[in-house]
Amino acid sequence: MEKLERLSRELVYKGAVIDLYKDKVVDENGLVKDYDTILHKGAAAVVAVTDEGKIIMVRQYRNILDRFTLELPAGGKDTIDEPTIECAARELEEETGYKSDDLELLLSIKTTVAFCNEGIDIYVAKNLKRSKQHLDEGEFIDVFEYDIEDLVSMVYEQKIQDSKTVCAILAYYNKYVNR
Amino acid sequence: MEKLERLSRELVYKGAVIDLYKDKVVDENGLVKDYDTILHKGAAAVVAVTDEGKIIMVRQYRNILDRFTLELPAGGKDTIDEPTIECAARELEEETGYKSDDLELLLSIKTTVAFCNEGIDIYVAKNLKRSKQHLDEGEFIDVFEYDIEDLVSMVYEQKIQDSKTVCAILAYYNKYVNR
Repeated sequence: MEKLERLSRELVYKGAVIDLYKDKVVDENGLVKDYDTILHKGAAAVVAVTDEGKIIMVRQYRNILDRFTLELPAGGKDTIDEPTIECAARELEEETGYKSDDLELLLSIKTTVAFCNEGIDIYVAKNLKRSKQHLDEGEFIDVFEYDIEDLVSMVYEQKIQDSKTVCAILAYYNKYVNR
Repeated sequence: MEKLERLSRELVYKGAVIDLYKDKVVDENGLVKDYDTILHKGAAAVVAVTDEGKIIMVRQYRNILDRFTLELPAGGKDTIDEPTIECAARELEEETGYKSDDLELLLSIKTTVAFCNEGIDIYVAKNLKRSKQHLDEGEFIDVFEYDIEDLVSMVYEQKIQDSKTVCAILAYYNKYVNR
């Protein structure tokens, strides 16, 4: 069981949602290694369940994958101190036009622990009320409703690959449907 | 349904496992936006199941989180063209000292689609043979065996948060245990 000690952290690049640092880390044998380190403010995602038991999903174009994806409504925290439950409620309303004040934490994940500290808290939202979608300029999101069983199938068929969405669909299905 | 078009991609930083680019992207209304883009070669992870039905897990110190994590054995592809099944077999042996030539694809995930193209193919490995752990210099990994039911509990208790590991544990449990 070997703990590493960080000697230094140097800023390489400051971006809009991520900052890139170069870390120098030493192990207990004195070996020094460089690590690429991406710092991220954190995010929240929502399994929003309609009164009919359908799950709200969003479809959007993802530049990094050069294709559309089907995902949970989600988004980054405005500030590092923003409680993720507030971020979840805000992103749900902005992206889908549904409001909820009945949010319960389902899961807390770290997306990619080798080089990034991004954490996503995933909430289940119920008692949805119709509000209005209000997207950022240049943001285009289509909203759909799915049966949870169909979403689980799409995970195994690799039609849904986004990790927060895969985690959330399987965790919700296990906890509330296929007990 | 709005497709984005990428106008340019400029290298900002070349790291060991990630490269950072700045993309200029235009939407159908002509609005141009910058995107931070991390390109990654891709990776593989393994749900390695012993003859007794236990799951092999690895514990290591993660610099980015400043703590130890419990994860599936996993690692990055040596080259972008390496088949993930070969990467999975190699990382299983290097990190845990178990070999398998009985690997089956369980799931394919994208860890963090807002800014990184990292994909991880997750395999189930059976018929494990004892080999020898051979870690890189400066790599320290402890190996443990767990019951799948305990791992599922640890996901809901947030003791396991790594997204590939959460996806894999829940997907394996759903498909093979709690059908």
